[in-house]
Amino acid sequence: SSMRIKVHGSPFSGATLRVVAALHEKELDFEFVSVDMKSGAHKQQPYLSLNPFGQVPAFEDGEFKLFESRAITKYLTYAYKSKGTALVFEDLKQKAIRSVWMEVEALQFDPPARTLTWEIFLKGMFGMETDMAIVEENKAKLAKVLDVYEARLGESKYLGGEIFTLVDLHHLPQLHMLMGTRVKKIFEERPCVSAWCKDILARPAWEKTVALQNKA
Amino acid sequence: SSMRIKVHGSPFSGATLRVVAALHEKELDFEFVSVDMKSGAHKQQPYLSLNPFGQVPAFEDGEFKLFESRAITKYLTYAYKSKGTALVFEDLKQKAIRSVWMEVEALQFDPPARTLTWEIFLKGMFGMETDMAIVEENKAKLAKVLDVYEARLGESKYLGGEIFTLVDLHHLPQLHMLMGTRVKKIFEERPCVSAWCKDILARPAWEKTVALQNKA
Repeated sequence: SSMRIKVHGSPFSGATLRVVAALHEKELDFEFVSVDMKSGAHKQQPYLSLNPFGQVPAFEDGEFKLFESRAITKYLTYAYKSKGTALVFEDLKQKAIRSVWMEVEALQFDPPARTLTWEIFLKGMFGMETDMAIVEENKAKLAKVLDVYEARLGESKYLGGEIFTLVDLHHLPQLHMLMGTRVKKIFEERPCVSAWCKDILARPAWEKTVALQNKA
Repeated sequence: SSMRIKVHGSPFSGATLRVVAALHEKELDFEFVSVDMKSGAHKQQPYLSLNPFGQVPAFEDGEFKLFESRAITKYLTYAYKSKGTALVFEDLKQKAIRSVWMEVEALQFDPPARTLTWEIFLKGMFGMETDMAIVEENKAKLAKVLDVYEARLGESKYLGGEIFTLVDLHHLPQLHMLMGTRVKKIFEERPCVSAWCKDILARPAWEKTVALQNKA
């Protein structure tokens, strides 16, 4: 292909969708290379030379290769500063606060959210049985995180500050997948969290991203 | 206290030591405020106003407050650019690669390393019993991560590139604690990993950081 930017991944991987969403926000053209995870292509060469941990996604911008979804989205904001949505702050303190909430997404929100997506959404797709004890444990963990989000979103329009940034974007894949499950309730019970979800899930760049999942 | 910078935490919290190590590398004066975790002070006000997740550390720079250790260390590199060790790259691509390995530390290395530290090192301190099944499972996970590190450190002096950066620094607390346990072996078996550990653990800023643990 003649495309400069390539994303290797799966439309059912939250980390892959995170990168695709950032590319759409930055209005960048790219090629999506589907990795055949069922046959274990991500655990073999040549894929391992793109991501030594054998995980999706992997990313190429010409000769330049990256992995880890949140490092890729950050790179896109710096390398393509003038394109599409900014997604970051320039001011030192705003940047530091955005950085705090980026860590919160990765370390507090994502682990229970990803476990719930796997148990309720993806296991069903693969004909596997949901473990209800794991669901209850992680729903409780996620609800505690959402209590902190409810307070934060009462003070600030978005998690990172007054504008939509990478912080919010990084949540989209798990939010989208959980909205189709019974876990939806813990988001709807919290008014600021609920309004924030509706707002960010309605972004045109996110709608384009979801189309990738519908095509699969 | 008249100190502008304050770190609230515990000398036995890896996340706290990460921030203290960055402060010493940046040659910044600070006050260490010990949080009485045994009595649960971190789960109550006024601490929760510093970190709504009730975790250590929390950080103050004058009126400016932050939490999440890796966001704090990043802030220090930008806010005090001209002080002490740089710890970051200016070049866009070097910065992106450092960002990849920062994610790797937080998402691949730290979870098994932290579990091992808890099981072997800290539980012992609290008179609790080590769960050997958890130790074996996490030792195997960590060994796989170290295989990737061995390859990376064969190509590049430090994980983020040719200079010591935040990537390496973020590993120090867990490395230090694991070096006093039987898990040491999985580091020593890998020559590049072993040389890297010796190098970074010998940094004067790290020796100053460890002194905090010895005083406790």
